[in-house]
Amino acid sequence: MRTGLTAMGAGGEFDRIRALLGSVPGDPRIRVGPGDDGAVIGDLVVSTDLTVEDVHFRRDWLTLEEVGGRAVTVALSDLGAMGAEPIAVLLSLALPDRDRALEAAAALGRGARAAAERAGATLAGGDLTRSPGPLMADVVAVGRTSDPVLRSTARAGDDLWVTGVLGGAAGAVEAWTTGSDPSPELRRRFTEPSPPLTLLRTLRARAGITAALDVSDGLLADAGHLAAASGLRARVETRRVPVDPALAAMGEADATRLALEGGEDYQLLFAAPRDARSSLEAPAVVRITRVGELLPGRGVVRVEPDGREVDVRGGGFDHFAGSAP
Amino acid sequence: MRTGLTAMGAGGEFDRIRALLGSVPGDPRIRVGPGDDGAVIGDLVVSTDLTVEDVHFRRDWLTLEEVGGRAVTVALSDLGAMGAEPIAVLLSLALPDRDRALEAAAALGRGARAAAERAGATLAGGDLTRSPGPLMADVVAVGRTSDPVLRSTARAGDDLWVTGVLGGAAGAVEAWTTGSDPSPELRRRFTEPSPPLTLLRTLRARAGITAALDVSDGLLADAGHLAAASGLRARVETRRVPVDPALAAMGEADATRLALEGGEDYQLLFAAPRDARSSLEAPAVVRITRVGELLPGRGVVRVEPDGREVDVRGGGFDHFAGSAP
Repeated sequence: MRTGLTAMGAGGEFDRIRALLGSVPGDPRIRVGPGDDGAVIGDLVVSTDLTVEDVHFRRDWLTLEEVGGRAVTVALSDLGAMGAEPIAVLLSLALPDRDRALEAAAALGRGARAAAERAGATLAGGDLTRSPGPLMADVVAVGRTSDPVLRSTARAGDDLWVTGVLGGAAGAVEAWTTGSDPSPELRRRFTEPSPPLTLLRTLRARAGITAALDVSDGLLADAGHLAAASGLRARVETRRVPVDPALAAMGEADATRLALEGGEDYQLLFAAPRDARSSLEAPAVVRITRVGELLPGRGVVRVEPDGREVDVRGGGFDHFAGSAP
Repeated sequence: MRTGLTAMGAGGEFDRIRALLGSVPGDPRIRVGPGDDGAVIGDLVVSTDLTVEDVHFRRDWLTLEEVGGRAVTVALSDLGAMGAEPIAVLLSLALPDRDRALEAAAALGRGARAAAERAGATLAGGDLTRSPGPLMADVVAVGRTSDPVLRSTARAGDDLWVTGVLGGAAGAVEAWTTGSDPSPELRRRFTEPSPPLTLLRTLRARAGITAALDVSDGLLADAGHLAAASGLRARVETRRVPVDPALAAMGEADATRLALEGGEDYQLLFAAPRDARSSLEAPAVVRITRVGELLPGRGVVRVEPDGREVDVRGGGFDHFAGSAP
């Protein structure tokens, strides 16, 4: 069964949603609309995230409790990327007939509630229905910030930074889809992503952060999203990218490819002016790595270790790659 | 194919969600949590509503544009039932591989946007993914009110009122599922529900409304939900129930059954003290009918035209009726 998780392709979810939803026609009640991680209404940020069985996960990869927890963590990651404090989570479930509905809902709910509580949010409602097909979960995350960090406000000359290490979640998926089992450490990268939910708020106090988003579609793809939203060109230096040490068992080329193109790590990618380097390079609880910069222009360029520059087309997870055009 | 739409059963979605989500553990940031139409955070109401192909609709019943519009209208109905002003709608779509993804998303988005705009709300974001099974749409509706109307605050002795006429949407579904075509009027009851989104705010200015919800699962079932949330017993007088005139072609018994037990009409059911009768009975743009009352106790009782009282068990749409226990 095609999972889509490692499929690469041009275009991508983000651009399609923008095309679908268009721009907000000047509604003064809505500070930020389509195209960012969440909508901003007053001082609240609202984001919605769909998780679909056999697209985003498979039952033999993780337990229902892990599915619920992961769905919530991934949704909260959108809030973290806007610098918002998590408040509430709403969980909508469509449960297949083959499941014992109440048991499945309870397991998913347990995982969801635990993930919400770890982040300081409360599971505050939802919806529940049956599904004649796969299990689907939609998580609405609601957070608060008086000053959201957007994707669209980076400036030419800014550095690009990424938190944590990359490629682990995609490595686990690649193991599963090629018929092997990932190591327990690699498996956890997928089943229990750990987005730095409070980091952006902390960093902003000591450095000017100009723009941010979470790395869900892959570093190159998401660098492209940030650059496109800001009307800039992203330049990512391959040798700087923090490859997940849990990928050590595979060759360097494969590990680097996963770190550049694999999605689902839910680390932060953010832009900051050059003069913030010294404060961002100071020791921190979470690893922060400078991986590139933003320039006038458009698109994404990857700088190979030998200095060669390669234009990137797509490069990341496209939910519709391979489906009808 | 079983659609579930006309299935009746004990229990019901509402009670299961409460069991799943439990109560909010005293989070002061959340004024209203699980169990009402939406969560209330500050002065914002957030609700989430799943629409699943072959559970909530079938492709041969309505166009994708109508699916998008209906999903949004149904979600906004939750806001209307809390007396909130609609602000924003977020639309998450899982699109089957057999659809041409962008065309389907565009049609769903067009319908969703038009429905949002009719209600004074803006389509402000969403999510998009593929589905290996049915089409699913989750709509997040965000509204504002400083004083939400809840389900749980009715008082013994209050009257029960309902807006509009009932049974039409279920009549359309019954026609389709028994192999005939509903009349155009009846079809519209299902494809274009018209919840009175602003009425509750208007009525509150001239009468004390103590509690409300929208009639999604059927009048008897939703009277039960309001009564249960308020710790009361609902008494519904069959002869008072406003049966949809579009059901005139069928026998009176069937039409009354659909008006009592059919769901999906998205009219308002609300409670008000007896001394509000004269002001509520004054002529209004929207028909308002007194259908019963709330008493000490629990459960729902239906009063037959001959005065006989019948205890109601279930009586409404249960998404899981017939599935594994």
